[in-house]
Amino acid sequence: MSNLKKVQDFLVDRQIDAALITNPDNIFYLSNFRSDPHERLLGVVIFKEKEPFIICPSMEVSDVKAIGWPHDVIGYKDTDNAFEFLEKAILDRISELTLLAIEKEHLTVDRFEILQERFPALLFAKSDDMLAKNRLIKDVREIEYLRKAAQLADYAIEVGCGEIAEGKTELEIVQAVEQAVKQKGAEKMAFETIIISGKKTASPHGIPGDRRIEKGDFILFDLGVVYKGYCSDITRTVSFGEPAEAKLKIYETVKKAQQAAIDTVRPGILAKEVDLAARSIIDEAGYGELFPHRIGHGLGISVHEYPSITEHNNLPLEEGMVFTIEPGIYDPEITGVRIEDDVLVTKDGVEVLTKFPKELKIIE
Amino acid sequence: MSNLKKVQDFLVDRQIDAALITNPDNIFYLSNFRSDPHERLLGVVIFKEKEPFIICPSMEVSDVKAIGWPHDVIGYKDTDNAFEFLEKAILDRISELTLLAIEKEHLTVDRFEILQERFPALLFAKSDDMLAKNRLIKDVREIEYLRKAAQLADYAIEVGCGEIAEGKTELEIVQAVEQAVKQKGAEKMAFETIIISGKKTASPHGIPGDRRIEKGDFILFDLGVVYKGYCSDITRTVSFGEPAEAKLKIYETVKKAQQAAIDTVRPGILAKEVDLAARSIIDEAGYGELFPHRIGHGLGISVHEYPSITEHNNLPLEEGMVFTIEPGIYDPEITGVRIEDDVLVTKDGVEVLTKFPKELKIIE
Repeated sequence: MSNLKKVQDFLVDRQIDAALITNPDNIFYLSNFRSDPHERLLGVVIFKEKEPFIICPSMEVSDVKAIGWPHDVIGYKDTDNAFEFLEKAILDRISELTLLAIEKEHLTVDRFEILQERFPALLFAKSDDMLAKNRLIKDVREIEYLRKAAQLADYAIEVGCGEIAEGKTELEIVQAVEQAVKQKGAEKMAFETIIISGKKTASPHGIPGDRRIEKGDFILFDLGVVYKGYCSDITRTVSFGEPAEAKLKIYETVKKAQQAAIDTVRPGILAKEVDLAARSIIDEAGYGELFPHRIGHGLGISVHEYPSITEHNNLPLEEGMVFTIEPGIYDPEITGVRIEDDVLVTKDGVEVLTKFPKELKIIE
Repeated sequence: MSNLKKVQDFLVDRQIDAALITNPDNIFYLSNFRSDPHERLLGVVIFKEKEPFIICPSMEVSDVKAIGWPHDVIGYKDTDNAFEFLEKAILDRISELTLLAIEKEHLTVDRFEILQERFPALLFAKSDDMLAKNRLIKDVREIEYLRKAAQLADYAIEVGCGEIAEGKTELEIVQAVEQAVKQKGAEKMAFETIIISGKKTASPHGIPGDRRIEKGDFILFDLGVVYKGYCSDITRTVSFGEPAEAKLKIYETVKKAQQAAIDTVRPGILAKEVDLAARSIIDEAGYGELFPHRIGHGLGISVHEYPSITEHNNLPLEEGMVFTIEPGIYDPEITGVRIEDDVLVTKDGVEVLTKFPKELKIIE
């Protein structure tokens, strides 16, 4: 069933007149059209019975048609009132709009107020959960793209390890890795590449800079690529020179915790069990306070999507879900270590999409 | 006066208890802290009289402190309810919250509803315009960063021209340009680099791909970099081999229109006059229908910010404003051409920040 049809079924089922979809990731999911509209209005409008349309800046109309969108495209100029065009296009298709589904997690308050002004009697429904749920289970084509994105992430780590050398800066390695992975077929990076070294690894969201790598450093790579619109996300931590005992102990604890979490994954277990499998090992080793984030997040068109793998999420895993497993320990006095894989829930277990080895790599 | 103080003055002036700032670009403007929070809550809360605080994921608390934020930082874990922490932190500082300024152009409907539930009697004010207005006039330090970002954009065009050769793909040139400009000091690209060739140039938002460059193509570069948090944005169109007459005519029309627009810029003229100066030349040359966008947009921490330079904007220009001037003509049968500079309104005229030559460059 097409992705648009699933939304239509939702509208029929809930007796909602139409859905206005404005989140670019959902627009891509529904139309295959990808654009960053900045402050301009870009939307897909879907009806219970009528054909859907895309509304976009007039200068993008030909791009929408070029990707094969078979329905109407409404273009407006920068000097037009986009919402006037939207209102007219809706009322050209249905006589009355009484209930509209919107993405409450994406639509901004000012646009919500504009809709309220244009349609004073309009009621609103939330479409976020329906869309997130539709995107939660990946189909064969999506899994193929996610596998390929994961392979490219593995390759990026391989390149990154080869770049490590005394005196090189973090940013120099970022550049070499990004260049190599794009030459190999990545459309772009899925998020800003993190390659940090030494005690900077103790910040889970550290920013690469001009720090020069020294013997004895742990170096943490957290990166991902986009392949045909789908994201990967991998983390590996490696040692430049022989590691001190305290670092080794942290590394082995994270590695054991990460594997324990992977080993829990199969259809029917709860998301929280994945988190808790790793968390209990880290807690028992005495590092509980140094693991300040959930163990993972869903992965697909967005680099963060559902399911959220937290110690409180009672969602049962299902075949076709894809998410990260990424425990970490961050000791500001010693080092940070995080190990992250992308995993797919299979019919009877798990497929780990990222395959770069997890034995501690010691680079001389 | 510090940027935080300007917000405080606004709150005092309007008798607003507090402001919740969640747009990452505004957070950077107010705190110098830059982070992409994805679905997590990241905010700066500013009060009429009390000290401001930042609320962020606990794993980023040390990053906020490391950049020198001298006020409180409230961290929450992934399993915490971030809005519970927000509510408590506000009510720890003021006994009652009755009027809160929010960014209506950024805050999502679901977060707005959460705030309404937590503070049932709360009224909301809009802070977008105040913040946009504060950011509209650039100070000396900001102008220095914008100049440097523009220089790096010039350099990127120079590198790009040097890469043009028979059979090279658009994406290969993108990679070479991005690598070179990052090695030269750009933090990252300001947006996804556009390098498109042949008839693809007729799409204002075209996407680089595997098309191989051929003799006779026009090649359009639209790119920008971030330097110390500030963006540049340049477009140049060059010819690979001798251009056909029809292409040359389009090029010269755009060039003349762009220069005419630049020549209007000085304090006191209206934003629309800049647009109309170029538009009338393009109209007179018979290409009016093929120029489907406004002439430019403000530039600073965001790659699109105020002022918006449209044919309807009656805003008088002021010293310290920075924006793009980028007319284009897009003929799907012949070629697209766009020429874009970043300009600063000076005391008595204009400074063009991007300086790459605009004579049609013919690459043999």
